[in-house]
Amino acid sequence: MSETLIAPRSVDDRLDAARRASIVLATTASGRKDAGLAAIAEAVARNAHRILPANELDLANARDNGLSIGLQDRLRLDESRLAGLASAVREVIALPDPVGGVVRGSTLPNGLLLSQVRVPFGVIAAIYEARPNVTIDIAALALKSGNAVVLRGGSAAENTNRVLVELLQEALESVGLPGDAVQTVDDFGRDGATALMQARGKVDVLIPRGSAQLIDTVVRESKVPVIETGAGVVHMFLDESADERMAVDVAVNAKVHRPSVCNALETLLVDARVAERLLPPVLTAMREQGVTVHADERARAIFPDSVPAVDEDWATEHMSLDLSVAIVDDLDAALEHIRRYSTHHTESIITNDLGRAERFLAEVDSAVVMVNASTRFTDGGEFGFGAEVGISTQKLHARGPMGLPELTSTKWIVRGTGQVRA
Amino acid sequence: MSETLIAPRSVDDRLDAARRASIVLATTASGRKDAGLAAIAEAVARNAHRILPANELDLANARDNGLSIGLQDRLRLDESRLAGLASAVREVIALPDPVGGVVRGSTLPNGLLLSQVRVPFGVIAAIYEARPNVTIDIAALALKSGNAVVLRGGSAAENTNRVLVELLQEALESVGLPGDAVQTVDDFGRDGATALMQARGKVDVLIPRGSAQLIDTVVRESKVPVIETGAGVVHMFLDESADERMAVDVAVNAKVHRPSVCNALETLLVDARVAERLLPPVLTAMREQGVTVHADERARAIFPDSVPAVDEDWATEHMSLDLSVAIVDDLDAALEHIRRYSTHHTESIITNDLGRAERFLAEVDSAVVMVNASTRFTDGGEFGFGAEVGISTQKLHARGPMGLPELTSTKWIVRGTGQVRA
Repeated sequence: MSETLIAPRSVDDRLDAARRASIVLATTASGRKDAGLAAIAEAVARNAHRILPANELDLANARDNGLSIGLQDRLRLDESRLAGLASAVREVIALPDPVGGVVRGSTLPNGLLLSQVRVPFGVIAAIYEARPNVTIDIAALALKSGNAVVLRGGSAAENTNRVLVELLQEALESVGLPGDAVQTVDDFGRDGATALMQARGKVDVLIPRGSAQLIDTVVRESKVPVIETGAGVVHMFLDESADERMAVDVAVNAKVHRPSVCNALETLLVDARVAERLLPPVLTAMREQGVTVHADERARAIFPDSVPAVDEDWATEHMSLDLSVAIVDDLDAALEHIRRYSTHHTESIITNDLGRAERFLAEVDSAVVMVNASTRFTDGGEFGFGAEVGISTQKLHARGPMGLPELTSTKWIVRGTGQVRA
Repeated sequence: MSETLIAPRSVDDRLDAARRASIVLATTASGRKDAGLAAIAEAVARNAHRILPANELDLANARDNGLSIGLQDRLRLDESRLAGLASAVREVIALPDPVGGVVRGSTLPNGLLLSQVRVPFGVIAAIYEARPNVTIDIAALALKSGNAVVLRGGSAAENTNRVLVELLQEALESVGLPGDAVQTVDDFGRDGATALMQARGKVDVLIPRGSAQLIDTVVRESKVPVIETGAGVVHMFLDESADERMAVDVAVNAKVHRPSVCNALETLLVDARVAERLLPPVLTAMREQGVTVHADERARAIFPDSVPAVDEDWATEHMSLDLSVAIVDDLDAALEHIRRYSTHHTESIITNDLGRAERFLAEVDSAVVMVNASTRFTDGGEFGFGAEVGISTQKLHARGPMGLPELTSTKWIVRGTGQVRA
């Protein structure tokens, strides 16, 4: 067990220790960081005997506290999930190290050599809910990108996370890296989260992951820069030129492939001119997959096997086999609906009209805009990033699926021979 | 006079109007935006008769309120300053439009065409002090990058800013662009600033410009994403291998070229092994330029024509002809001093030792790190950006001098032919 946990330190002391570790990591060669990741994968794979009893304790508390079955499932670890976690860490090893990459550079007229290079943020903080896999995921991504990380997981996973952080620290130290590069403030409860949000100058970036409520609280209260990973009220618009077969396939895939995630379709908009042609086949296919259709009045007139949509439906991320459906007069009305209700995550148009496709791409103000593709493709893995930190719905720094480069900042390097300003 | 000012609207209504204008600007071609900029330059150059009386009113109030001579000078406009402002706007026309630039792209294995393109933020807010030139500068940069902007200038410049915003709106409307793309909330006083900081979802990014105190307040209170433009406690380290002539030239240039700006040198660190060789010529040259040297005990032993440095000196951005000087044992001690006191703006090393140069570049955690160059080069114009929004000292989104691309976000465009996720 690492010494740091035997003698608890204040949050400030831990952040200072994380800063010192981050200075070491910032100039650690990729090979050494990868050795640390390999040790972490090994530690996760071989220590079920330490991890699972702690997880069992958390699960027993969760049952006593009446945590929902869904949340209990997200909290649960077993041998197979640990193997999956270890394998995810090994995949991070294979990714390119973003640190040191040159973003742009030039030689100035006075001979100064200018280059902008990727550097780690330094100290990343993460506040998330009771999903112990996030502990390992974020630690692995932070280490690969040369960052120290201070974690505040949900209190429901406190015992599991404590063991995981011990294992992470031991693994780092086993290859000569500072164990302080991964720390938890779980033992301070809510005060730990508050301290992270207040730690201006000590935390370089704070990433909240979890429910809309958690993210909202962090964005509102944090005094340190935040990357917001947000909810998705995801729209698809069936244009009058849409191919029927494509509309059915893509819309159904977007809705039912994995309804509980942020890139799943929530609202289907259909051009009034083709509603009679497209709605019956699309919604029949949806019904066959168990989808409950919440339709506006005009759509219900065409597809009566639906429940009446209420106002809240348009702003709701169902995260279930429920779909809001509205008929709109034209592309302009679709754009207006999307502007009003979108959470700026992902929207897609199904069309064969080039002009309307380009208008949709240009005018919809979302992290990802698509033509003739399932919204389920908004994903770091699908985009080829190899691993995903989350999907940013803000516009500052990162937008859309975030990979390792999004966990870095940049630094300007200026090399001269004694130049002065005239 | 634009209708919007005849009937005052609430801050929320103005932000909504700015959003509508931003939707138009986001897809406005560069040529049209440049026509708007030309009209703005013309309006500034030709309307001294409207601007200067309002400015005289602000100046009279400033004198009555005992505003310092320095602040009065920053507030003052005259024919020549207006010509300079118009010319700065014309320079923005010549810059490349960042909007639509493709940052990266690829074809995924399933045939999806993926591209990440630069898009405007949407609505930018700026909170700044009584410098009316900032009103024109920021409006021009925002327009070029396709953004609407909502301004809160200092109340000391309220009359000047009101006329300038009227002229900006008229200029935009004269070329068929929405006047609402530039708005002020000055008439709400402090409440206007507070409303901007609370406007989550309505303001995409907030840029504070001005004193450290202003920036600190905005960073702490804002609920919307902020780009922090910060103070510079700028360091230079004279390594034991430093060339004497270069040390004198570069250090003196960094200190005296323009002492009141953020990239001016504030603290000079010297390796103890060469202090006797380098300090006398460097500090004698400083004294000749009127610099007051605040030296630590060891430096005073070598250069008695100095005042004793006090603890606060090391953390002070003098912004005047004052220089803090300390002798340090070696590069490690210099790095430690910089870690403790740097505001992460700019630091420079003067050396002929390759190993120590590279260590300095790698280990100093600042927006700009230099070898053998004057810190005065940390500047958007010097970097070749053509115009500067400010110098970011935060690590999120932008770091160092910010040009037009830093006023944009990105959007992922996905073009498919009906792809679904398996």
